[in-house]
Amino acid sequence: MRLFKLSLTSAAVATFGFAAFADGHTAALEGAVKARNGQMGVIGYSLGLLGGMAKGEAPYDAATASAAAENLNAAASMNRIVMWIDGTEQGVVAGSRALPEAFSDHAGFEAKFVDLETATAAMVTAAGTDLASLQAAMGPVGAACGACHKAYRGPKN
Amino acid sequence: MRLFKLSLTSAAVATFGFAAFADGHTAALEGAVKARNGQMGVIGYSLGLLGGMAKGEAPYDAATASAAAENLNAAASMNRIVMWIDGTEQGVVAGSRALPEAFSDHAGFEAKFVDLETATAAMVTAAGTDLASLQAAMGPVGAACGACHKAYRGPKN
Repeated sequence: MRLFKLSLTSAAVATFGFAAFADGHTAALEGAVKARNGQMGVIGYSLGLLGGMAKGEAPYDAATASAAAENLNAAASMNRIVMWIDGTEQGVVAGSRALPEAFSDHAGFEAKFVDLETATAAMVTAAGTDLASLQAAMGPVGAACGACHKAYRGPKN
Repeated sequence: MRLFKLSLTSAAVATFGFAAFADGHTAALEGAVKARNGQMGVIGYSLGLLGGMAKGEAPYDAATASAAAENLNAAASMNRIVMWIDGTEQGVVAGSRALPEAFSDHAGFEAKFVDLETATAAMVTAAGTDLASLQAAMGPVGAACGACHKAYRGPKN
């Protein structure tokens, strides 16, 4: 493969191995989007487990609830500078649902993510305590998800 | 949708909301596989960033390297009881590449994952130090990936 010099939007893109190749810029951006979609997948799955218990659709199980909450918080707390990089908005990179505002309003986007970190950290403690605690912790988690999606997520692809 | 009583293979499946529905067992297992594929996606992407720097294909950047290592370790350390559940081997659940041995040999599988946690925790410290440290930490991470894949991962789907 021939090598090109590329105009890169961030250190994260510059350091991705693919970036050295001709089609590397697009591949690097798509890699970041795929990875964060995986991050969101873990969040959604974990929240599904907790939500099923909160709604009484599944029996409360402290070990499972704790594990789901740990993974939810671990995914929510991932470092954002390598996966949520500039130039990866919806319509520009395949698979992305991030609105341009997620990258033009860094402080606002970051604040929403910090809210999710806070709410999911509280869930880690609550989930293993008892069902009532889990249920009480669902509100702030759901609110954090919803607020960020409302401001920074586009329609389904 | 009609409700069924289902024979469930684990508490994680039992607590997944979908499990209350007719096709819930399959959906719950597929949900677990999708989530762990997301987990693996974060691992692969983060390792790609670190590997690009280690091989000199991308310039060393301490902040990016640290972020990638943090996410690598966070994904590697996720609680396995809700995503790596019995009955989700390759050929049984769509998207799975886990060999049956991953679930028949719990202790061996767990040991391999603990090796990955250890190697990626060391990478968290090394990645932000300097390029030589990052390069030295790549060996154990790669070895942990390889050893687990050799024992417990099937061919591409």
